Amino acid sequence: MAQLPHRVVIVGGGFAGVNAAKTLGGKPVSISLVDRRNYHLFQPLLYQVATGGLSPSDIAYPLRAIFKQNRNVEVLLAEVRDVDPQRKQVHLETGSLAYDSLIIATGAGGQYFGNDHWEPYAPSLKTIEDATEIRKRVLLAFEAAERETDLDEQLSWLTFAVIGAGPTGVELAGTLGEISRDTLHRDFRHIQTDRARILLIEGADKVLPVYPDDLSRKAERALIQLGVRARTGLKVVDISAQGLHVEGPRGPEFIPCRTVLWAAGVKASPLGRMLQQRCGAELDRAGRVMVDGTLNVPGHPDIYVVGDLAHVKQPDGAMVPGVAPAAMQMGKYVAHAIAARMGNKPVPAFAYWDKGSLATIGRHKAVADLGRLHFDGPLAWLIWLFIHLMYLVGFQNRLLVFVQWAFSYLTFNRKARLITGGLVLPELRAPRGTAPPATEDADAHPVLKS
Amino acid sequence: MAQLPHRVVIVGGGFAGVNAAKTLGGKPVSISLVDRRNYHLFQPLLYQVATGGLSPSDIAYPLRAIFKQNRNVEVLLAEVRDVDPQRKQVHLETGSLAYDSLIIATGAGGQYFGNDHWEPYAPSLKTIEDATEIRKRVLLAFEAAERETDLDEQLSWLTFAVIGAGPTGVELAGTLGEISRDTLHRDFRHIQTDRARILLIEGADKVLPVYPDDLSRKAERALIQLGVRARTGLKVVDISAQGLHVEGPRGPEFIPCRTVLWAAGVKASPLGRMLQQRCGAELDRAGRVMVDGTLNVPGHPDIYVVGDLAHVKQPDGAMVPGVAPAAMQMGKYVAHAIAARMGNKPVPAFAYWDKGSLATIGRHKAVADLGRLHFDGPLAWLIWLFIHLMYLVGFQNRLLVFVQWAFSYLTFNRKARLITGGLVLPELRAPRGTAPPATEDADAHPVLKS
Repeated sequence: MAQLPHRVVIVGGGFAGVNAAKTLGGKPVSISLVDRRNYHLFQPLLYQVATGGLSPSDIAYPLRAIFKQNRNVEVLLAEVRDVDPQRKQVHLETGSLAYDSLIIATGAGGQYFGNDHWEPYAPSLKTIEDATEIRKRVLLAFEAAERETDLDEQLSWLTFAVIGAGPTGVELAGTLGEISRDTLHRDFRHIQTDRARILLIEGADKVLPVYPDDLSRKAERALIQLGVRARTGLKVVDISAQGLHVEGPRGPEFIPCRTVLWAAGVKASPLGRMLQQRCGAELDRAGRVMVDGTLNVPGHPDIYVVGDLAHVKQPDGAMVPGVAPAAMQMGKYVAHAIAARMGNKPVPAFAYWDKGSLATIGRHKAVADLGRLHFDGPLAWLIWLFIHLMYLVGFQNRLLVFVQWAFSYLTFNRKARLITGGLVLPELRAPRGTAPPATEDADAHPVLKS
Repeated sequence: MAQLPHRVVIVGGGFAGVNAAKTLGGKPVSISLVDRRNYHLFQPLLYQVATGGLSPSDIAYPLRAIFKQNRNVEVLLAEVRDVDPQRKQVHLETGSLAYDSLIIATGAGGQYFGNDHWEPYAPSLKTIEDATEIRKRVLLAFEAAERETDLDEQLSWLTFAVIGAGPTGVELAGTLGEISRDTLHRDFRHIQTDRARILLIEGADKVLPVYPDDLSRKAERALIQLGVRARTGLKVVDISAQGLHVEGPRGPEFIPCRTVLWAAGVKASPLGRMLQQRCGAELDRAGRVMVDGTLNVPGHPDIYVVGDLAHVKQPDGAMVPGVAPAAMQMGKYVAHAIAARMGNKPVPAFAYWDKGSLATIGRHKAVADLGRLHFDGPLAWLIWLFIHLMYLVGFQNRLLVFVQWAFSYLTFNRKARLITGGLVLPELRAPRGTAPPATEDADAHPVLKS
């Protein structure tokens, strides 16, 4: 009787899962990659979709296409219902999968710190649907402002708040600044889009809190040039359809604001809790699984947790950050660990190689923290561009994204600013058309007359 | 008192409306362009979005961006509620617009000939949402077939029927043939996608019924090479989730088929009926407005109907076809007619210039009917490609579409095959994973074991 190949089940087709599967692709194992989406998403550029600079398909690539040539990889479009570590099975809604090694790489979503009721008013940015929803809200806010005759209401539509000044928040706010100042300039007839207020709300006392002080200062200066006002040391107390209640050094404050975007924190995928119940895994406050040095759930050398769902301690006690390069490294590491264990070889502990941090601010500025080297301005932006293009899966996407960026850069044109998925116009308090009727000669503007 | 500018209200931002507004852009009139969408859609390429070859933003362009430079054009994102020809007003949900000239250009949607209950099972292709819905259905059908263990059910998932063999139907069916034979080849592990059955159902006795016989024959031959089987002379009797009931020369027949696409006819926009009620306009069977020689509703020289909503008789009695070039010509014509009437000049009747018909079949074939000249094969395809690129609004889109096509052409890769908008997996009768448990050694395939 022929020996069965070692069966690896990978749950999640993000950076960690795809890199694990790709690395195992040439090895004598049989791999099932389970995801409820049929594509791999290049999340670091999701904010570009949310702001109309890129199309969803520019940053997403079908999983089946990625593994076309890897005949030992099977892609399954399914959701995980349960994990059974005793019988070594994963239960899907369509049946069960047996595994010899299990890799959980299901990442994280938006974290509202116990205030999940804020989510409808302040969507976070994790999926393509999030991105198109945010794009729709931003574009409809300008449309609503154009129709609004009450000046306070108009200002409220033209105020955009981004909560959280980490790299994603900085990128979102900077791009909103560009859109309002450059892209939409001259698109409207009754509003001046460059008067839009973009607020970047942060609880810490500076933007990019984990960056060195000099880069945080440079980032804030670059943001100001794009019309973004950073408001640091502010705690968000409540969010509603009308705006934000915040608490700062000067006491409580209400900011009227119709569009709020959430970039303040992540919560681990619910599979963490499942591992807690089934394998006694320990979770951190954000729901991440505390793994050991080989990225295993302690006591379960056949179950690995990688990517944003894993809480990995570095030798200095700090956590490996939830960024794409770390997820890629973990994915490749577990692939090698599984191969080593199959050959009864020793498995060295996972070591995170921190290549530095990069955050982009608008079209040609960025800050880069490469340890002792700090960059800012156009050079940092070029480094950022190069790295992101290098990592984009698939040659076609890479070139297309580059062409699109080149055009955006040269023309300030954001081509993907479509409002799709059913048009529900925001409710207006005093819409332009319902003003009291004017006499014929007093009303030189022909449109939206009662 | 200064004289007020002539007020033109245009309803609909399709080919007719956009061309009317662009032509009036430089003239001393004040224009309001009303559309419930914020973009102009290049409908002739919508089938490419439905089949994953292009992204929505490749074929859609924001209306505000089109008229950025035309300061006398205001774009309004709104839906028309009513028309009042006596007071010369258009009522929107947000207020009213006064007009001196009114241009109605709201086009047409899918026509089910009194069988609107078929729509859920056989979506038609008119909007971006239609296209992404069809894309999702097609991709999920392959996913369902991959998981299905019952061979009859699997065949039903791998059968695709396109109803109506006009240009859109031919294009859709040809592209489905390509996808199953080339694009998805090697993507799956349990099905052979090139065994998919693509049926093109037509009531007339040939494909492309309005084309000359020689081109219809050539089109059918090209379709066969792509794996598409044309079934002509078939009347659709009923459509359900399980398949199609048809009636043909050989009597009634049931075709088990999980994916049905509708390309069989158009129904004019509801604004036709509104004009019937308010202005006594006459409608044809499809709900199109019968207009006079100057494209006016008879008796209303200030109300024009253009594009697919207009029924325009040519001198030989035939109707001007509902195609993009005709809509563009009508849009430009009414702009000149309005300008002529403002200058009290005579207005010549509209004359349609038929430049010929083109239908593409797959990646490098097409048929072109240019009156006495008939083309087919790669030359016709190049003509088709050139014309479509020429007409695409906006330089960026044109280049991007070209780059994307060039890659698709060279690599057979369809990048935009994303399933978005919430994943609801089709219900399976006998899904792979719920088969009775197999013994360990009998089940060499590691995945989806019970």
